[in-house]
Amino acid sequence: MKITLAQLDYHIGNIQGNLEKMLRAIETARDQGADLICFSELAVCGYPPRDFLEFSDFIRLCEESVDALRQASRGIGVVVGAPTRNPVVAGKDLYNSAIFLYNGEQIGVQHKALLPTYDIFDEYRYFEPATGFGVIHFKGKKIALTVCEDIWNVGNENPLYTVCPLDEMAGQQPDLILNLSASPFSFSHAHERIHTAQVNVKRYNIPMFYVNCVGAQTDIIFDGGSLVLSADGSVFDEMPYFEECLKVYDLEEVERGGVHQVRAKDKMALIHEALITGIRGYFKKLGFSKAILGLSGGIDSAVVTALAAEALGCENVRVLLLPSQFSTGHSVDDARALAEKLGVRYDIIPIKPMFDAFENTLDPLFEGLPFNVAEENIQARVRGVLLMAMSNKFGHILLNTTNKSEMAVGYGTLYGDMCGGLSVLGDVYKTEVYELANYINRNGEIIPQNSIVKPPSAELRPGQKDTDSLPPYEVLDPLLYQYIECRKGPAELIEMGFEEALVRRVLRMVNINEFKREQAAPVLRVSSKAFGMGRRLPIVGKYLS
Amino acid sequence: MKITLAQLDYHIGNIQGNLEKMLRAIETARDQGADLICFSELAVCGYPPRDFLEFSDFIRLCEESVDALRQASRGIGVVVGAPTRNPVVAGKDLYNSAIFLYNGEQIGVQHKALLPTYDIFDEYRYFEPATGFGVIHFKGKKIALTVCEDIWNVGNENPLYTVCPLDEMAGQQPDLILNLSASPFSFSHAHERIHTAQVNVKRYNIPMFYVNCVGAQTDIIFDGGSLVLSADGSVFDEMPYFEECLKVYDLEEVERGGVHQVRAKDKMALIHEALITGIRGYFKKLGFSKAILGLSGGIDSAVVTALAAEALGCENVRVLLLPSQFSTGHSVDDARALAEKLGVRYDIIPIKPMFDAFENTLDPLFEGLPFNVAEENIQARVRGVLLMAMSNKFGHILLNTTNKSEMAVGYGTLYGDMCGGLSVLGDVYKTEVYELANYINRNGEIIPQNSIVKPPSAELRPGQKDTDSLPPYEVLDPLLYQYIECRKGPAELIEMGFEEALVRRVLRMVNINEFKREQAAPVLRVSSKAFGMGRRLPIVGKYLS
Repeated sequence: MKITLAQLDYHIGNIQGNLEKMLRAIETARDQGADLICFSELAVCGYPPRDFLEFSDFIRLCEESVDALRQASRGIGVVVGAPTRNPVVAGKDLYNSAIFLYNGEQIGVQHKALLPTYDIFDEYRYFEPATGFGVIHFKGKKIALTVCEDIWNVGNENPLYTVCPLDEMAGQQPDLILNLSASPFSFSHAHERIHTAQVNVKRYNIPMFYVNCVGAQTDIIFDGGSLVLSADGSVFDEMPYFEECLKVYDLEEVERGGVHQVRAKDKMALIHEALITGIRGYFKKLGFSKAILGLSGGIDSAVVTALAAEALGCENVRVLLLPSQFSTGHSVDDARALAEKLGVRYDIIPIKPMFDAFENTLDPLFEGLPFNVAEENIQARVRGVLLMAMSNKFGHILLNTTNKSEMAVGYGTLYGDMCGGLSVLGDVYKTEVYELANYINRNGEIIPQNSIVKPPSAELRPGQKDTDSLPPYEVLDPLLYQYIECRKGPAELIEMGFEEALVRRVLRMVNINEFKREQAAPVLRVSSKAFGMGRRLPIVGKYLS
Repeated sequence: MKITLAQLDYHIGNIQGNLEKMLRAIETARDQGADLICFSELAVCGYPPRDFLEFSDFIRLCEESVDALRQASRGIGVVVGAPTRNPVVAGKDLYNSAIFLYNGEQIGVQHKALLPTYDIFDEYRYFEPATGFGVIHFKGKKIALTVCEDIWNVGNENPLYTVCPLDEMAGQQPDLILNLSASPFSFSHAHERIHTAQVNVKRYNIPMFYVNCVGAQTDIIFDGGSLVLSADGSVFDEMPYFEECLKVYDLEEVERGGVHQVRAKDKMALIHEALITGIRGYFKKLGFSKAILGLSGGIDSAVVTALAAEALGCENVRVLLLPSQFSTGHSVDDARALAEKLGVRYDIIPIKPMFDAFENTLDPLFEGLPFNVAEENIQARVRGVLLMAMSNKFGHILLNTTNKSEMAVGYGTLYGDMCGGLSVLGDVYKTEVYELANYINRNGEIIPQNSIVKPPSAELRPGQKDTDSLPPYEVLDPLLYQYIECRKGPAELIEMGFEEALVRRVLRMVNINEFKREQAAPVLRVSSKAFGMGRRLPIVGKYLS
């Protein structure tokens, strides 16, 4: 039996566009001589469709799409993920289903049993879990059809769940496992995915075909890396990351085993590709092509500019250098050097005239009070207004350059440097931004060395340094990681060796700044815990604040 | 038996503060001669605690609080809602529990079975549903202890669920139902709450004591309205809305029946009180006392100013009148009249100098292109910068004045009039804002009549009117209501009589502006479907856009 895996980039809600892409893939698979083609989880509507699922009209469009795929299944099996209606009144209205189509008929369907409802996932908001499990008979083979998370509770060892779908099917002695996934990227996920697939094939002693999607849906990035594993756990093939791929496999060959292709998993290379995929996807799916951002001479905006130029082409990236009276000369030089190196258009706009206009206007109201955060923020906000004016006039999307460390401690100005349609580095700690800069420079200097080595500063006061108000990033970032990613409490952090006063101060900074993150741009997610939908905290919450 | 219901305002995460409040209530109940005092759902930590629940340290603090309540339960039963750990490895880590304490012992616990996971609710993200149900024996009575949603699937008629907890307990012949709730306000919810309570008591033919919390947690407002119902469905008592209340009831009297107190449920009066509660709670829980906002002379900012003055005191509200060259003379007059009527401090700051500074600076970059939305937005953003500068300098929270109709169609400037820490009217349609203005004027004019009767305008272009780019609000709002609250699709809307071209245009406006709402201030929720956590849509989504 020949099986084609279709690792494609879907667009949430673009049901017609997704259908056309799948119909083309079916034709290609037919040409490849495939008996069966497999698309990924909820391929019909894109993942995650969120509250679109609450519109009956949206489900009807999905049903029409499945119907068109059914009609296209003459002579070839088509397995596709789609929402389906729960015919029983009690329980949620929908199932998250894998539908098996062949010769114009629906020959089987398996609903998802394990519904991730944590981090960015809200599946129990919409879906009823499956309680029935059966293999699908196709061309003399028994196929154990599973959807994403259903293979992530091997032998009931995942504490989140109480059922293991493949254990339920094992009595029917399936010949192979087929898994339809929409499994988001994080920099450590490819390892976990292969490990989980291996544990499954070894437990049941049958091969697995695992198909993931690729591309970005706002904040969530899918890396592909679809897998074919032999029964002994060897990786027969791992599809490329961040690329569409349509490939046919011979089941008999897979059964014979052997490692054919495993991909490199360097953390910075993966994050780099993920961010480029994230930028590209956001622009393409919103129908934009051009980006603008403010280039300060610092490391964050330099890295975002380099990423944007690679994602969109240097001709589609425009930068503004927006020096204030506190900007140092080398900042403008470093920014200009980067813009010239990348070949992106830049303009230098000193912000003093606008800043002065605000100062003069506010002078009678500020009653001779000293310069403080109010004036610092005016500078950041004048930059925001200028960038947004350009964005509005010329149809650019403004890229935000705030990194994860700053977002965590609230070191950024709301409606100032926090402006933007997309946060490129909001899930990348400052220490990782340096690593990323070095990675971007791997084949020669793109980011000026000076931007990498100079002490970070917002340049909103004379001689200001980040370390005036924050601990050094080498100390801050590991603490933030333990608190945000690992959810360690103060006692645990102190026991790990972090200084108590620092722990109290940093956790308080994180928690009292929830109101800023609530209004932040969507953050490209590259870690296991990003700011945004995956981390939900009450603004008025009083814990550790 | 005497039962005290404690309808209190908790603060999420302020576990010590909540404990102290409950300990004081226990002493009062003891003085009242109560046998039992009941607090509401998750009273120990406040509702909804969201991802604080993922911190083991947070759960430990909750356990310590329950322990302190246990020690305070000598001679009086104490029923309290708290998260508890699930001792079984399989399934979610926590339960959402009602704990029964008496004489220094925990004499019973009932976990919640029906976990709302829709709209603003995410309970299955954290909690394992109960599968065991038993009554609690206390002083010769058998008490059916339930948590919130557990009484909302009477006889399995709620399609969301597959179990009815009270049906499970009915075989043990309970004498009364006790329900611990944290049931958020919406303007129609008090009716539904009484109806549901009545259906329950009639089905089981026993009285019910239902205790809800009050107060606001960022966007979510709790109205209290705790209930005591006799077995025949008569409302023995309904506690006040939006006020703390501690009241003792004699079970025998309740068993005898009779209606003693039911509250008026006028929609505008309820919304008015809810918004005041929302403003007051947000400031108090964040430790702020002073508000600032921009007063345009239009209806929205006038209503927010009146609400803020009532919530915080006129001495704590400050307004800026920020006329542009396109502002009409009557706008400033109307704004000034309101400020004077309310006795709030106002300053008039023409925005022209800042606007001119931006125009002059951008002139070479805008290359003689015509005035358009870019310049309109600069005006709105200059106002945002001025208001935020005052907020930063003097420690005000900026109140946002955008209404629900504008938020829906994206008629507002990101980082401009969309600035603010809290959106007061973001869940109030424009036509309802007029009703609210008339309600505020019910005992004499506060909002100038001129602000109510003049055609709405953003005044960002000469002679601009909202109806230049939007349908009249009398047409727009019912359509938005059907789409947003009722999730009707285009075919259904057209069938209801809305014009097809209008349906397509409005739905597209709603959907392409998801990126703006993503960065909006938290919205005080007063309807069954508000923008924010309760409505989750993908920014890059292509459905109906």
